[in-house]
Amino acid sequence: MDDISPRPLSPRPLSSPVGTAERLAALRAELDSRGLDGFLIPRADEHQGEYVSPRAERLLWLTGFSGSAGLAVVLRDSAAIFVDGRYTLQAEQEVDTALFTPRHLTEEPAGPWIAERLKGGKLGYDPWLHTADQVDRLAGALKRSGASLVAAEPNPLDSVWTDQPDPPLAPVVVHALTFAGEPSAEKRSRIAGDLRRQGVAAAVLTMPDSIAWLLNVRGGDVPRTPLPLSFALIDDEGQVDWFVDDRKITDEVPAHLGNAVRVRRPDEFATVLAGQSGRKVLVDPAGAAQWVFARLEEAGAEVQRGDDPCLLPKARKNPTELAGARAAHRRDGVALTTFLAWLTQAAPAGGVTELAASDRLYDLRARGDRFRDLSFDTISGSGPQSAVIHYRVTPKTDRELKPGELYLVDSGAQYLDGTTDVTRTIAVGEASPEMRRRYTLVLKGHIAIATARFPEGTSGSQLDSLARRPLWEEGLDFDHGTGHGVGSYLSVHEGPQRISKVPNRVALKPGMIVSNEPGYYKPGAYGIRIENLVAVQPAESRPGDERKMLVFETLTLAPLDRSLIELSLLDEAEIRWVDDYHKRVERELAPLLEAPVAAWLRDAVAPLEKG
Amino acid sequence: MDDISPRPLSPRPLSSPVGTAERLAALRAELDSRGLDGFLIPRADEHQGEYVSPRAERLLWLTGFSGSAGLAVVLRDSAAIFVDGRYTLQAEQEVDTALFTPRHLTEEPAGPWIAERLKGGKLGYDPWLHTADQVDRLAGALKRSGASLVAAEPNPLDSVWTDQPDPPLAPVVVHALTFAGEPSAEKRSRIAGDLRRQGVAAAVLTMPDSIAWLLNVRGGDVPRTPLPLSFALIDDEGQVDWFVDDRKITDEVPAHLGNAVRVRRPDEFATVLAGQSGRKVLVDPAGAAQWVFARLEEAGAEVQRGDDPCLLPKARKNPTELAGARAAHRRDGVALTTFLAWLTQAAPAGGVTELAASDRLYDLRARGDRFRDLSFDTISGSGPQSAVIHYRVTPKTDRELKPGELYLVDSGAQYLDGTTDVTRTIAVGEASPEMRRRYTLVLKGHIAIATARFPEGTSGSQLDSLARRPLWEEGLDFDHGTGHGVGSYLSVHEGPQRISKVPNRVALKPGMIVSNEPGYYKPGAYGIRIENLVAVQPAESRPGDERKMLVFETLTLAPLDRSLIELSLLDEAEIRWVDDYHKRVERELAPLLEAPVAAWLRDAVAPLEKG
Repeated sequence: MDDISPRPLSPRPLSSPVGTAERLAALRAELDSRGLDGFLIPRADEHQGEYVSPRAERLLWLTGFSGSAGLAVVLRDSAAIFVDGRYTLQAEQEVDTALFTPRHLTEEPAGPWIAERLKGGKLGYDPWLHTADQVDRLAGALKRSGASLVAAEPNPLDSVWTDQPDPPLAPVVVHALTFAGEPSAEKRSRIAGDLRRQGVAAAVLTMPDSIAWLLNVRGGDVPRTPLPLSFALIDDEGQVDWFVDDRKITDEVPAHLGNAVRVRRPDEFATVLAGQSGRKVLVDPAGAAQWVFARLEEAGAEVQRGDDPCLLPKARKNPTELAGARAAHRRDGVALTTFLAWLTQAAPAGGVTELAASDRLYDLRARGDRFRDLSFDTISGSGPQSAVIHYRVTPKTDRELKPGELYLVDSGAQYLDGTTDVTRTIAVGEASPEMRRRYTLVLKGHIAIATARFPEGTSGSQLDSLARRPLWEEGLDFDHGTGHGVGSYLSVHEGPQRISKVPNRVALKPGMIVSNEPGYYKPGAYGIRIENLVAVQPAESRPGDERKMLVFETLTLAPLDRSLIELSLLDEAEIRWVDDYHKRVERELAPLLEAPVAAWLRDAVAPLEKG
Repeated sequence: MDDISPRPLSPRPLSSPVGTAERLAALRAELDSRGLDGFLIPRADEHQGEYVSPRAERLLWLTGFSGSAGLAVVLRDSAAIFVDGRYTLQAEQEVDTALFTPRHLTEEPAGPWIAERLKGGKLGYDPWLHTADQVDRLAGALKRSGASLVAAEPNPLDSVWTDQPDPPLAPVVVHALTFAGEPSAEKRSRIAGDLRRQGVAAAVLTMPDSIAWLLNVRGGDVPRTPLPLSFALIDDEGQVDWFVDDRKITDEVPAHLGNAVRVRRPDEFATVLAGQSGRKVLVDPAGAAQWVFARLEEAGAEVQRGDDPCLLPKARKNPTELAGARAAHRRDGVALTTFLAWLTQAAPAGGVTELAASDRLYDLRARGDRFRDLSFDTISGSGPQSAVIHYRVTPKTDRELKPGELYLVDSGAQYLDGTTDVTRTIAVGEASPEMRRRYTLVLKGHIAIATARFPEGTSGSQLDSLARRPLWEEGLDFDHGTGHGVGSYLSVHEGPQRISKVPNRVALKPGMIVSNEPGYYKPGAYGIRIENLVAVQPAESRPGDERKMLVFETLTLAPLDRSLIELSLLDEAEIRWVDDYHKRVERELAPLLEAPVAAWLRDAVAPLEKG
């Protein structure tokens, strides 16, 4: 992932003393010596984050597969790699399929595959790398086979990975109150109150973004997300034990945290869990490693399974965070608009490649002093590559943008005051009538979400079909969610809310930020996605309102490509939305743009009716 | 329920030898003699159906509460009745609140209430009257309290209910192949194949509509639904043990069933379950009584928890059932249209009451020879009573329809060839602009569902917001689902599909019938609901379609009240839908109507544009 990004901020120091076959043989020998008949290698670390440190790239080391999700299963005589639909092609290219049979993670799940081959055998897993929910599900799938699941510590793969990188030691810094908006002590006190209401003595926190939010700290242990990797335990009085390597702690941190937060060695986590005998402790089975549950159960603690208590408060941004998000989006809009002004002029003339475009956009974003990193690897795809939903350009795949094609750029940044994520689809030269028609259908879906007015208690799942309906009318759809939650100078993918056809009961609440990103993809031809971030806000009340209603405030500021809009497909309200949005983009960005870009923007956002 | 219906088909022979206080005292004495500190009295029978026989009206006998859902909890010193939002008012009117504290079933659930009062005590429950899922949930809620859940057999309330009615013995008749469309032997063979694929030896069937569907039989043991109460076990070769009182079996049944179905005494159910040792048996924890699970576990069977295997095949109507549904809806449309013609002429002149209207509609429906019963008690509400979502008119509440009011009639019938359920809202005289505006918003939601085009795999939950969006725009909503499944001469409420904001992963599949019934209710003033039944059908393909799409075929045929439609709120496509629907109603019904009614219909369905 980051090895193909324009600016590799955390270079991957994996070396390859032996080939894949030798690594697999070495792992099998290790398993044999431990009496194991098989072992699981997920693409996961101890915190179940989307980005992991080089030390946790075990799946990549063993198989060569570099995708962001996947699972290898190594048995005595066979091995397989399970990846989802995004990655089937990539896995076949990167993995030696003579060693690892590629399988579809959801259509051909691992459980039955293992059960069939491992009758009565012992399947090892690293209890640090699987959540309790995952272990439960796998145990269920293996139940019939007679195979048993065995926690293997230390990780057998680590035993044969001789030059495995050390855990990362990026500095932990204070996230200033001017950005966080609420002192850590107040957050801790809120969470403690919640624990008391739930009747639990303490909660284990394993998700680094929860801890970063709670303590108002940031770090750099993984790419693209300013997270310090650590664990914590918060009790019902708000006292925190924070298990973090003290070599990461910068001087400013101790005074910031005060006495209620005790910085402890990572290896003390086990000791503290062992001391929870007889206490009721909250742990999130969807996020916490099985290892945590095992320690608590051994200790005789009463384990209460439930959501990470920081999840919902973190998702609801406070007024300072929302103001920061608006400022970050203005800055981001300046960079993206400057980029688009250049691109729409340069690309039709030839010579602009996907990689060059992505590099230029990076440079424009990096100018500001609050810029810290991209929030994910830029998707910069032209022509057929714009149809690849999770495309990452590499020098090998790089190609020139050509007239008559669409160019899709999905990108975002980590600013001190907010995280951005935006997609624009641009016609290089003139687009075909079909491209324009389908762009407009996607736009109609985008506008339906942007203008939705819905009662309190509504979940994102309930809104999802509004984004798809115009495409459904013409027999089309897109195979990804309509929107994901976004953090505040934290993860670009953040729960618990989302807009998706997958059922989700989390009500959208004021302050939550989600993406609004319907799309359409014609394989081998072109792809379309229009993405803005939006924040949930109370609706202004109207006469006759009987319910408390919510709306979305659009945060992202960048022009849409008017040349792709087929005006006859939009109704009056939709045309008004585009024109109003464009007016706002110009009003907020023009004063911050260089004069030629401002002039370009003025043309780009001319009212639709005037053609 | 049925005691307030226009034609009580199954009179309730409950006698009241003593008052509520004496009944409660007698129950408490019985509990004491059995060493129990409390007991649960749900409004449920052994089959968890919506309608129950008089024998199962334990909650009514004990508390006087006649609603269709509720739970009483009797402890040594306190007792409470838990009902949902529909029934809070009714419970307060019907129940002696000095004896039973009324509580809100979902907002103040029973578990914590019991846990607080029953520290360490023994709570009895009848294992026949609670599903395994319900018992699991309650056990979870009581876990902290130290209270224990004890299966109490026989039911302690039955021991003190001296004149409890006997189990019903309505005749079981053959459901002819001309209506069922698929021989029972083929259905059994399909289910057997499914069991083999699931790797189970047999499935326990406890839901009477599943058994009625599987065996192509119907009965009359409960009101409003042609069900024989019974249990069954089907094995993986399609052999069925059917546990049913043979006094109910009419002469035609044995030959119809053949040798593969063994009719056995109800008391043999226990024996057969006890004989399942070592076999893998499928049981539905959402529908089957805890008693079944307990017997299987005692026997050493391997219990596989999963959906009733008849659920999905029953929901997907075959071509014969769909043809039957269309015929039943024509017949039903003739009755309803004749009723509406009379009502719109008679009501504004005065003298028409809710009860008289409901009686007249019953008489019109009952004329046809395929009519067997109503499919539920008619909701016939005028003025403020039209805003009561589950209103049932009684002689006490009966009132005259008055000019300037809305009248809402939600009704349906059981015909041999299909089950109907339709709601129309009618202006008595002239409606207010607000009524017309809101009727039109509800209509827009109805049309959005009626015209939805959606890809295979879409669930009803995904479509729900389409019905609400026009109301949301004006700060309005309605507090019920948008649509429920409907059986084929079976239950008017049938799973597993539904259109609801409650998440539901069941994909809508061709042949499924659901209601399309958005509404709006202004408490104390007026209520609006527009309900048609629709059947899921494959969409005709259009050029450019990339997905297999589905649409709804509207089955219900009856005019909408054009005087309630505010034309300026409808777009062209919506106006076209109303006019096309009305043209179809006239085309299909006019030849079957008496001349004056046909003339009235012709005016009633005049194109909207002509005003």
